[in-house]
Amino acid sequence: MKCALGIDIGGTTIKYSLVSTEGKLFAKYSIGVSPNKKQEDTLQDIFASIEDNIEMENPDIVGIGIGCPGGINPWRGTCDYATNLGWKNFAITEATSKKFGLPCFIENDANVALLGEIYFGIAKNYKDVVFLTLGTGVGSGLYLDGKIYSGNEGKGAELGHSIIEHNGRLCGCGRRGCLECYASASALSKDAALAMAHHPESMMWQLCSNPNRMNGAVVFAAEKAGDPVAKEVIDNYISYLGDGCLDFCNIFRPQAILLGGGVAKQGEYLRSKLQRYIEKNGYGLLKVNPPKTEILIASLGSDAGIYGAGALCFENLKAE
Amino acid sequence: MKCALGIDIGGTTIKYSLVSTEGKLFAKYSIGVSPNKKQEDTLQDIFASIEDNIEMENPDIVGIGIGCPGGINPWRGTCDYATNLGWKNFAITEATSKKFGLPCFIENDANVALLGEIYFGIAKNYKDVVFLTLGTGVGSGLYLDGKIYSGNEGKGAELGHSIIEHNGRLCGCGRRGCLECYASASALSKDAALAMAHHPESMMWQLCSNPNRMNGAVVFAAEKAGDPVAKEVIDNYISYLGDGCLDFCNIFRPQAILLGGGVAKQGEYLRSKLQRYIEKNGYGLLKVNPPKTEILIASLGSDAGIYGAGALCFENLKAE
Repeated sequence: MKCALGIDIGGTTIKYSLVSTEGKLFAKYSIGVSPNKKQEDTLQDIFASIEDNIEMENPDIVGIGIGCPGGINPWRGTCDYATNLGWKNFAITEATSKKFGLPCFIENDANVALLGEIYFGIAKNYKDVVFLTLGTGVGSGLYLDGKIYSGNEGKGAELGHSIIEHNGRLCGCGRRGCLECYASASALSKDAALAMAHHPESMMWQLCSNPNRMNGAVVFAAEKAGDPVAKEVIDNYISYLGDGCLDFCNIFRPQAILLGGGVAKQGEYLRSKLQRYIEKNGYGLLKVNPPKTEILIASLGSDAGIYGAGALCFENLKAE
Repeated sequence: MKCALGIDIGGTTIKYSLVSTEGKLFAKYSIGVSPNKKQEDTLQDIFASIEDNIEMENPDIVGIGIGCPGGINPWRGTCDYATNLGWKNFAITEATSKKFGLPCFIENDANVALLGEIYFGIAKNYKDVVFLTLGTGVGSGLYLDGKIYSGNEGKGAELGHSIIEHNGRLCGCGRRGCLECYASASALSKDAALAMAHHPESMMWQLCSNPNRMNGAVVFAAEKAGDPVAKEVIDNYISYLGDGCLDFCNIFRPQAILLGGGVAKQGEYLRSKLQRYIEKNGYGLLKVNPPKTEILIASLGSDAGIYGAGALCFENLKAE
C-alpha cells in the first residue's frame, strides 16, 4: 500500500502521520512548535521526531506533503511568512526532500485541509469547491476545475477579507467591513455578548454567565431552546455568512461550499439554515440560471490537515 | 500570415473581421441583431454576411472565435441564455464549425475582450488579470495562471455581483448592495444627479442642465475644474470601486486589474486615483506582503471584442 508522509503545521503543534492512497491514517505523532525557536531549528526538530517514530526508508512511502499557515509559495516550496510562528522567507521543501530523499510539497493549510476533504472526506470527487473555515477568522481554500487554486505568487484566496460592509467593522487586516468581521466564530461570540448586554432577559445568561466567555455553541443552544435574542444574533450571522457564500457563488459557481472551523461543529443545523438562505436569496440571474451550489460540512475534523498533506503529495505526484 | 475569424456579438450589432496571429485587424463588417428574430435565423444571417464579405476557403484561416453576452458554456459551445438578445439554449459553435469546416470556439464577451487585451493590448504577456468593465453594469473577466477562467459550467466570474454593502442598494440581479450598484457608470451618474439635486451651486449644473442626462464624463470634468460637490461624488465612487478591487486582490492576487467600459475612458486620471487608493488602503497582510497589483486601462476600445474573438481561437488551438 503506497503512502505519503503528511505533516500538518499548526500554530502550537506540528502533527504528522503516514496516509495511504486509500485514505488510511497510520499512527499520529506530534511535536510542539514555538515562535521563540529559530525556524531552521524547528525544522531539525521535526526531522528528528520523524526519524524517531517512522521508518522512512520504506519503498512504499512515495513522498511528503506539508500544510502550513501563512503565506506559502508552493512552487518555490517556501513559507514566505507565518506571523504566529515568527517564520519568514523559510525554505522548507528543499531541505525536507534532501533529508529523506523523497519529493516534498507544501501548500497553505486551508488549501491542504480542503484537499483532504476532496480526497478522503465529504467532498470526494467534487471538482469545484470553495472552503471556508469559521474560526477565529474566516480562512479559505479554493479547488477550481479539479485543482487547488493558490493565486498568483501562491498568495491568493483570502476570501474572508472580502468587504461585505463598506466602512464597516475594523478588521485585523487593516481594512473595514471584511466578511471575517461578521462571519467568524469570534464575530458570532462578540455579537452575542453585545446582545446579552442589551437583553438581561436573554436565556444566554443562563447558559453563560460571563459574556466575555461566550462562544458559538452557546448562542446556537439558546436559539434552539427558543431564545428570541439568540435567534436575532443567529439570523444576522446567517445573513452575513450567506451573502458571502452567494458572492462566491457568483464568482466561482462552485459545486459546493464546504464549511469547517468551530462554527461548522453545528453540523446539519447550520448547513440547512445556510442552504435555505442561499436558495431563498439566490444570486445573479437567479431565474434563468438557478443556483446549484450545495452547502457541505467538513467531515475530517482535526485530522483534515494530515489527510490533506498526504493528499497534496499524491496530487502533485499524479500531475508530474 | 495565419488568421482567425473573430466574431463579436453585441446587444444590437454583430461585428466580425479576420485577425492575424500578430494582431493585424483586416476589414471589419457588421450586421444588426434583434431579439425579435429567431436565434437560428440570426445565425443564418451571420453566415450569409460572412460569405458575402470574406473568402473563407483560405488555408491561412485556422479557425473561428466568438464572443457572446450572457451565460456561455464554452465546452458545449452554447449560449445558455442571453437575456437582451432573447437567446436560450442556443448551440452556436457546432453549426458554425460545420458551415465553414473550421474549428470554432465561444466564450463570454467580457472574457473574450480580456483575452484581446492579453494577446494584443495593454495586458500583453500578463498571466493573472482581473478585468472589470464599468458600464451600465460592472462586467468582469478572469485570466488566471495563463488561462481564461470560466467557472464551473462556464458561468462564473460575476465579480460585479459581489456584495459590498450588506442590505444596500437593490441590484438588478435581485440582491442588495452589489458592487455594480456603486461602481458602474450608471451608479456614478445617478449619484451625481442626486448630489446636484442637493447642491444648486454645483458646477455640474453648468455642464449638464438636466440631471437625468448626467454621465461620468461630466462628473469628472466638474471635479477637474474644482467643483467640491463633484469631488465628493468621485471620491465616494473611487472608495467603492477601490474596495472592490482590493477584494479581488485578496482573492486572486492578480498582477493587474484591467478597467474597461465607459468610466475607463477617463484613462490615466482614473487609473492613478485608483492606484493611489489601493496602495493607501492596502489589503490583507499589507505590512508583511505589500500589494503589487497594477491598475491598467484597456487599450483596444470597441475593437477589443473582435481582437479577443480571434485570440480565443488562437488560444484554443494552442491548447489542442
